[in-house]
Amino acid sequence: MRGAALVLLLSVLSAQTPSGPAATRAAVERWVTANQRPIVAELMALLAIPNVAADRANILRNVAFLEQAFATRGFTTRRLETPGNPLFFAERRTPGATKTTLIYAHVDGQPVDAKAWNQPDPFTPVTRGDRIYARSASDDKGPIIATLAALDALAAAGLQPSTHLKVIIDAEEEASSPSLVPAVTQYRDLLAADMMLIFDGPIHSSGRPTLAFGARGIITATLTVFGPKSGVHSGNYGNWVPNPALRLSQLIASLKDDEGRVTVEGYYDDVAALTAEERALLAGVPDDSAQLMRAFGIAAPERKGRSLQEGLQEPTLNIRGLASSHVGAGARTIIPDRAVAEIDLRLVKETSGRKLLQLIADHIRRQGFHLVDGEPDDATRAQYSKIAWLRVGQETPAFRTSPLLPESRALASAMEAAFGAPPVQIRTLGGTVPIAPFVDALRVPAVLVPIVNFDNNQHEENENLRMGHFFTGIQILAVALTR
Amino acid sequence: MRGAALVLLLSVLSAQTPSGPAATRAAVERWVTANQRPIVAELMALLAIPNVAADRANILRNVAFLEQAFATRGFTTRRLETPGNPLFFAERRTPGATKTTLIYAHVDGQPVDAKAWNQPDPFTPVTRGDRIYARSASDDKGPIIATLAALDALAAAGLQPSTHLKVIIDAEEEASSPSLVPAVTQYRDLLAADMMLIFDGPIHSSGRPTLAFGARGIITATLTVFGPKSGVHSGNYGNWVPNPALRLSQLIASLKDDEGRVTVEGYYDDVAALTAEERALLAGVPDDSAQLMRAFGIAAPERKGRSLQEGLQEPTLNIRGLASSHVGAGARTIIPDRAVAEIDLRLVKETSGRKLLQLIADHIRRQGFHLVDGEPDDATRAQYSKIAWLRVGQETPAFRTSPLLPESRALASAMEAAFGAPPVQIRTLGGTVPIAPFVDALRVPAVLVPIVNFDNNQHEENENLRMGHFFTGIQILAVALTR
Repeated sequence: MRGAALVLLLSVLSAQTPSGPAATRAAVERWVTANQRPIVAELMALLAIPNVAADRANILRNVAFLEQAFATRGFTTRRLETPGNPLFFAERRTPGATKTTLIYAHVDGQPVDAKAWNQPDPFTPVTRGDRIYARSASDDKGPIIATLAALDALAAAGLQPSTHLKVIIDAEEEASSPSLVPAVTQYRDLLAADMMLIFDGPIHSSGRPTLAFGARGIITATLTVFGPKSGVHSGNYGNWVPNPALRLSQLIASLKDDEGRVTVEGYYDDVAALTAEERALLAGVPDDSAQLMRAFGIAAPERKGRSLQEGLQEPTLNIRGLASSHVGAGARTIIPDRAVAEIDLRLVKETSGRKLLQLIADHIRRQGFHLVDGEPDDATRAQYSKIAWLRVGQETPAFRTSPLLPESRALASAMEAAFGAPPVQIRTLGGTVPIAPFVDALRVPAVLVPIVNFDNNQHEENENLRMGHFFTGIQILAVALTR
Repeated sequence: MRGAALVLLLSVLSAQTPSGPAATRAAVERWVTANQRPIVAELMALLAIPNVAADRANILRNVAFLEQAFATRGFTTRRLETPGNPLFFAERRTPGATKTTLIYAHVDGQPVDAKAWNQPDPFTPVTRGDRIYARSASDDKGPIIATLAALDALAAAGLQPSTHLKVIIDAEEEASSPSLVPAVTQYRDLLAADMMLIFDGPIHSSGRPTLAFGARGIITATLTVFGPKSGVHSGNYGNWVPNPALRLSQLIASLKDDEGRVTVEGYYDDVAALTAEERALLAGVPDDSAQLMRAFGIAAPERKGRSLQEGLQEPTLNIRGLASSHVGAGARTIIPDRAVAEIDLRLVKETSGRKLLQLIADHIRRQGFHLVDGEPDDATRAQYSKIAWLRVGQETPAFRTSPLLPESRALASAMEAAFGAPPVQIRTLGGTVPIAPFVDALRVPAVLVPIVNFDNNQHEENENLRMGHFFTGIQILAVALTR
């Protein structure tokens, strides 16, 4: 049996043609079709264990499940103790392999408000139509079970992964993964790998196999422009006391042009121009702009002729909130005492959030503002006619693995060979993923391989996993592991 | 007695020198000093009658008080019935006079929250230090009693007003005077006069006799800029979905320059340039800019080198409120669905609020916005990339009597002669007074002659009247009536 598997393995490894991944995929598909019942049963069993990060007793039950599940597949397992929940680690050598793949997933889920769900208990999964409804069905227990099923399917077909495998499963992802980055220092050797595959997140809305090579980071800030110490009568002093809502508006208007391009000096300096090859990759993403615009109720994107994917390659400067005195029924005829803008900057790999905010601070000073670091006192108010406070919030870095690296190309080629068309290749996801600081610390090429349906209600009530996506996802992960 | 009074009267009328008003003032001052006790007793009696406009039974007790008080001073009185509270009207002919003065005051007061006061009952006046505390002590029962005392003092000195007198006392002023303007149509002949004196409002903070020749009007508006139908993820769509908070800021910034000058085409076209004489009047107002700036905590006024009084001669465009999504703890990383600015325009005599808002609407269109009149529907959203809604609110007109009219000059000269220095002459009060539509409808030169202390807590708890201001106020009103 072992000998036969080795012969089959060698024949697969030596195939050197697109039929290799295609054959793998076909074998996995057959095995999955024949084994849907036990695969789904294992998923149901894992979904039945509550998994909110703060619920340590149940988290340990989830970890015990993983230990048993990966041990069954020939992995040696280990709990990496941390000040918080343990990280689950598993490892399996692949005969003949020279490289190592590190698989990342997370077993914890978002807190639940059971009353908001269409079922009695989010931890008692129910099937409706072609979906399973339960907390973490998609985020991220579905991909964990799909990984196990992919390993089973490969073994059943006498196939094996192309690399040694390491697995790290976080149990605090939805609580911002506080233990993950410290673990890199403590367990660097253990985690060492040639490539990291992140099995998390939704597949492209087109349903096509998707690879995401990076995600934007984020930094937030609060910009306050100060007016009089307290609101003053807009009649008695209008045209004399300066209005902070006007000045904040003028400041915001000075930050961006009519098409949303940031006009702050140096803002895009660190962002490298895209190569023709990168542009082609972006153009290949099958976003349906017209459909998106209809859904959002907008007639045009911010910048004429620019695609969503192009926009995602640059840092943003987003005004996410504005406030000054009151609007609506509570509006009063005053010159307000202050005006506040909440800002978030989405970052790309080349841009540091703190540096961008420093450029913005310099810009604000060039507009004649004195920047304070808190409420201005009387002496400051007497000295400076324009006073603002730019308070810097939390930063989460971006990450990006070049889609042009050999590792990236090999993965994309395997997908193309297996599925008959190139995968959707996302150079940069627009949003921010909590895994980014871990990727940043590990310094390993990392690629997200998402499989779950786009409309999975992630983080909300009635989270679900579409079975079609799940079963195809097992094929996708098997192809990724045998790339 | 009548003969002697007539001789004295004729000697006063023929005096033709500054000693006339000065002598009147001195005589009134002597009489007031000798009669403080009964004057204050009459004030206390009126303050003891509750006077919230909605409390009709007590309003009628106030009116009955006025009927008795004015009848005692030789007036014929009348209730002008309206759909709301009656207006009190009184009239007294002055032998030899050819002109008529219409005195306006109001007997109703703001609602009270007794628990917030430092006394058990706002309608049981108490004396603390040199002030009487009670609802309407300053606004506006103090001036009514001061008028009665001025008439008594003149009579005791054998002096009489320079004109026939008519008195109209509103009992719904704090409820926006709904009956006053309609009464102009119904009682135009009865109300006919050559000049109106409005005995209401606080004297200039310098304490000097004050004449106010006008007040700004107001119109409000709500400007909404629409973004996507609902907030969208700032990461997934940042740099692609337009941000309404940015666009609103850009729009607001386009409305005014760095010094607060409105840049909307034609905004100041109707405002006549000030003459040298008018500029001199404004310069004569003893505003303490340095003190005001300290109090407000600002280092400079909105426009360099411009005085408060100069600012009050022009319409404003004030951003009184801003909102878009959330700020502070509730801030979310989204591109908001809308951004809203609440606006108020303070108007001067020459500017119509509706016309100014029309100019602003034209300006908004020139910035590329499509203006809607409600929530935009899908078809509108699909057609126009920039959509805004300028919703127009209530308008109250401005009024102004030229300080250069003979009637105005006569009043100011009498004050100067009586008090040894020119009065503070306010060409335009910055705020809006509810009497403006009445003045507008009557088309009579109208001047406010305020007497009560600036710090009287008008409209709030612990409303009070400083006795020094009250007793000097009696002299001021006597001089105004004998101008």
